[in-house]
Order: sequence, then structure tokens, then C-alpha cells
Amino acid sequence: MTETDTRGAWLSAEQLRDARERLPILYVDAVPVRVDERGALSAVGLLLRASQSGTINHELVSGRVLYHERIRDALIRHLEKDLGLLAMPRIPLSPQPFTVAEKFPTPGVTPFHDPRQHAVSLAFVVPVVGDCAPQQDALDFSWVTPDEAARLASLGEMENGHGVLLRQALAHLGFEV
Amino acid sequence: MTETDTRGAWLSAEQLRDARERLPILYVDAVPVRVDERGALSAVGLLLRASQSGTINHELVSGRVLYHERIRDALIRHLEKDLGLLAMPRIPLSPQPFTVAEKFPTPGVTPFHDPRQHAVSLAFVVPVVGDCAPQQDALDFSWVTPDEAARLASLGEMENGHGVLLRQALAHLGFEV
Amino acid sequence: MTETDTRGAWLSAEQLRDARERLPILYVDAVPVRVDERGALSAVGLLLRASQSGTINHELVSGRVLYHERIRDALIRHLEKDLGLLAMPRIPLSPQPFTVAEKFPTPGVTPFHDPRQHAVSLAFVVPVVGDCAPQQDALDFSWVTPDEAARLASLGEMENGHGVLLRQALAHLGFEV
Amino acid sequence: MTETDTRGAWLSAEQLRDARERLPILYVDAVPVRVDERGALSAVGLLLRASQSGTINHELVSGRVLYHERIRDALIRHLEKDLGLLAMPRIPLSPQPFTVAEKFPTPGVTPFHDPRQHAVSLAFVVPVVGDCAPQQDALDFSWVTPDEAARLASLGEMENGHGVLLRQALAHLGFEV
Repeated sequence: MTETDTRGAWLSAEQLRDARERLPILYVDAVPVRVDERGALSAVGLLLRASQSGTINHELVSGRVLYHERIRDALIRHLEKDLGLLAMPRIPLSPQPFTVAEKFPTPGVTPFHDPRQHAVSLAFVVPVVGDCAPQQDALDFSWVTPDEAARLASLGEMENGHGVLLRQALAHLGFEV
Repeated sequence: MTETDTRGAWLSAEQLRDARERLPILYVDAVPVRVDERGALSAVGLLLRASQSGTINHELVSGRVLYHERIRDALIRHLEKDLGLLAMPRIPLSPQPFTVAEKFPTPGVTPFHDPRQHAVSLAFVVPVVGDCAPQQDALDFSWVTPDEAARLASLGEMENGHGVLLRQALAHLGFEV
Repeated sequence: MTETDTRGAWLSAEQLRDARERLPILYVDAVPVRVDERGALSAVGLLLRASQSGTINHELVSGRVLYHERIRDALIRHLEKDLGLLAMPRIPLSPQPFTVAEKFPTPGVTPFHDPRQHAVSLAFVVPVVGDCAPQQDALDFSWVTPDEAARLASLGEMENGHGVLLRQALAHLGFEV
Repeated sequence: MTETDTRGAWLSAEQLRDARERLPILYVDAVPVRVDERGALSAVGLLLRASQSGTINHELVSGRVLYHERIRDALIRHLEKDLGLLAMPRIPLSPQPFTVAEKFPTPGVTPFHDPRQHAVSLAFVVPVVGDCAPQQDALDFSWVTPDEAARLASLGEMENGHGVLLRQALAHLGFEV
């Protein structure tokens, strides 16, 4: 999750900080998955990243929607930014997210929390079929089984509510959580 | 969950047994809930029932869809049968269930299991606003907090996968599971 | 749809204009409906309003989500603002919208269009059970049958894509569109 | 849509006829689609088939779920049966259908109708990426644009409510209908 979008540069860092104190900021969250030949979930992709507080966390793919950007283009951009240009994500056909995560700067309002801002995130499960490799500041990217994903998500070490979101995604896909 | 629908009598007990060995049987599952004035979940309703194996289990509302019966009418019928005629369920507007539970007679095919048949159940969360009382063979009906519902659902003592379904419902409603 | 939220005043008119040129703005759209005792759609509520171009249009309820405001609170606020404090909306339990409408200032990017901004709107069908009366600048509020709603929505006189959204809502509820 | 599943032979023709007079029969309906590299809908696949009444109709893929068959396996089986073994369907990850079509033998109960039975059909949009060719009794299979699909669906010549279902699918995918 990057703080600024240098590519887009729609907003200066100062302007973005300003907006974050006054408006809900639109995000997309993606749960990258592998599917088998019958279309069933076979693995969940997790990024490993060092947080600002120094701990090592598992993370989903997440990022801001830019001005005049389609939601599906934001999903592609963030998936390619985090997993590489060879990831080949299959963006869902329908604009309906499986859930909407409301992340407040104040903890406890919802199960989600984002100390930097009030973010509202449209969450999607996204099959990726290409080669994935950790980009930029990510330490690693790995595929884990659905059971292992459910277990990691319940440990409370995925920040910004990513653990909650991951378990909600697994439930949406028909898994036991 | 009753074995035969004496009201409908579309099928004799023998014919129903026969069909159950040859066709998937259509069910509806309902998670009865109380909502607060903002429409947010405040409590989950659970039936307490003695199972055929002699244990005491928490259960959701569940039952078969009859020939020439609308899904919303099947939901009303089973909710009134289990919670009483004063329950006043608010059946969801959309025919889209929050999930579909495939319950196989063989354990392990899905997280759901029904030893009697191959049942395919359309699952809905249904606010009920009236007075609820256990009917027929139910021992009790009680309202519990969402947290307590999530906890009870994870204990593995809700048969036919009702615990799994309840936690999937809570996830669908935005709760941490 | 009001231009500024005088109640909230999180942003000055100038600041809001500024943000609208740089960020997607989060909205909620609500289709107010009456349901019968079986929970089925019986009527759709439409506002009648004079547009800035001088034509008379049918409209849904729509408005901005404020900083630190829950989506369900934004829905309640806009429904009460447009239909009155006695409207008694029943906000959906789940945070999952039936669709997400991406409204671009450039026509033709999506079926939706908003000349003022890039708005991303989470759309919900909301039963209202109380008395509704047009507020502020609305000329009228009336209940029409689902068929009449589908017809009005196809005439192309509902601005900002509200006609498209209304027909998508009817389709989601199982109606022929 | 075949009348009997000779492959499965779970039921004799007589037994199936019997069950159809007494139980709702579980179906799956699939809208075969092509998607572009951004995951957006680019074309809809339609079968051309002579109906029993002698007219030529466009049809979706549709068929019964067999005893002890997973819903995703029923989708694969019917898609391969109608479009050929090289169709390569991508079955959706989630068990949640975009709608449930209740098809009654009595016309007018819902927008759907099936003179042979009370069928309850779980409807999915399914991208297919391989080569498709009409099988068995189908006269043709062709890809049409989303606009052309919406137009054909509104002509009233798609039987069993397939036209209604197709337009509901397009609405679910964010299109104007």
C-alpha cells in the first residue's frame, strides 16, 4: 500500500494529506487467488511486508482509486504494482464487490482501521494466472492453502483489517472460517 | 427441520425417501436476526433442539421448498413453523441468497453435510421483528449477541453445517469471524 | 442531490470544488421502495425535481458520504433529508451494495454520468415504511408500481444515470426489465 | 436443455416425470461470455435451437443438477455439453448466483416459466475462453455484442424466461438494460 501515487500525481503529497482529513478516500482491496481447472479456490496469495512499526506482516493488495480511473483499472494497476507485470489478474466481471470495508482512523468503529485516513474499500477476490513476484518494498510473496490463509488471517498480525477481510473473502467463497 | 411436511402432503413419506436417493432436494436456510434502528445486526436467534443422536444442538431455521412454492413463501412457512406465527419475518427483497450450501450425504465434499440426502440450500439472513417462541420439538429459542453467535458457531456442535453457515452469514454482514 | 452539506460543513464550498477535480467522491444511491407483507416489492418511490437545465426529472435518493460517516448513516441522512424525518428507512443489513455506479464527468465512459465530478456510488434498495413527503427543493414524491418505474426509467429523462440504476435495481429484485 | 440425462441415468424417464410433478427441480443457468483483457464483458454467447413448437429461439446454457453433483460440476457439464469440450469455461469462484430464477409450470407466477416442471435455477455468468461449437440439437452458436444481446433478449423470443435472465445478467454486470 503506497502513500502516494507518483505515477498519477493527481495530488501533491500535501493536498492528499489535506483531503484525507476531510473526505472518505476510495480504495480497492484485492485478494489474489489461484483457482483449479474447475474454478475452485486452490491458493491465496499473500504479500510479506515490514510495517512502519517494524513488525513483519502479511498483506493483501490494496490501494487508492485515482481521479477519473475505473475501479477495474485501479485493481489492475495495484495488482501489477504489487505482484509484477506478469501477474495476469482476471478482474471480476461485475462491479459488485463481495464486501465494502469501512476503515476509520478511530479504532473500534468497524472491524477495520486505518490510522492515516477514513478509507472506504471495495473488496474483490481476483484470480491471477501469471507469474507473481514481490515488488518494491515487499519482502516476499507466497501462495498458501485456503486453510493456511484462514489460520494466518486469524492471528491478528495482518494490519488495517486485512485479516478480517481475508476471512470474509473465504466465507464468501463457501469455505469454513 | 422436519422430516415430512404434513401440511403440504405433496409426497408420501416413501416417495420423499425415494426422491432423496435420486435428486438434489431444494432447501432454504434462514438466519433469524434482530436489527437496531440503523438497520445493523444486534442479535442472532438460535433454536435449541435435541438431535437424533441425543445431543443438544443450536440450530438455524431450515426446511424444504415444496412443489409450486415460492422461495419467499418457503422462508415464511419455515420461520413461522419454528418461531411461531407472531415472529413477523421480513423476507429479503432480492432472490439472491448470500450463499448456497451444498449438503452432501457423504461428509467432506463441502463444509456442509446432511446424512439423509443431497440438499442444496439457499441461505438468507432474515430480520424478525415480532415475538418468537420455540415450536414443536424445539426446546428453546434465544437471542444472542453477534459475538456470542460467532463463538457458538465455532464450537462444532451445530449439526448439518449450521455453524459454518452462521459464520458465513456474519462475515457477509461485515463482522469479524 | 444537494451540492453542499450545510449540516456537516466538513468542507467549504471551495474546498469541495477543489477535491472534486482531484479525487473520486464517494456517494450512496438509494432506491426507496414499499414492500408487501411477504417482503416482495410493491412500489418504488420517486422524487420529482427541477433540474439545473430547467427540465422536470424523476430522481432517486443520492448524496455524498461525509468524513468519518458510516455508509448506513449516510443512507439514513440522505433518505431523511429527501423524504422527511418520518420516512423510517430500513437500511440493509449487509454492506454489500447491489451495484457500484461509476459516474464520470466525461459522458460515455460508463452508462452513468455526473458533469460535476467523478463520483463512485454504492447503490442500495431501501424499504421505507413511514410517511414520505418531498423536502426542500423537491417538487413531489410519489409511489409508482414496479412496471411504471421500469417504464419511467427507460424514458431517458432521469439524470445522472438514475434511470439505468433503477432498472438495474429492478433486475436485481428479480423483475423483468 | 436436454430432457433426460442419459449420461447420468440416475432416474428413469418415468421416475423423472414423476418427480417433476412433486418436487422443485434444481437447475443451473449459465450466460456464456467473452471478456477482454481488463475483465470487462465483450460478447455474449447464444445458442440457436428449434423449439418443440417449431420456432427458432436463442437460448442460454441450462440444465439439471444431478444427485451428488456439485453445482460447479453441473455448470461445467452443461457448458461442455452445449458448447463442446474445447469451450474451457471459467466457473465462478463463489457459490453465490447472481440471481435465482423460479420457473413455474403456471405462467405469470414469476417472469419465468417452464411448462414441464417447477424448476429453480441458480444463474451464473461464465466466461468461456476456448473454442465453442454448437452440439447435438443446437443449430448454431454465436457471439453477439452486449447491446445486441440486450436487444435480442427483449424480443420475447427466448423461451423459459431466458430473455429476462439475460437482461438481468447484463444489469448485474453494470450495463444499461
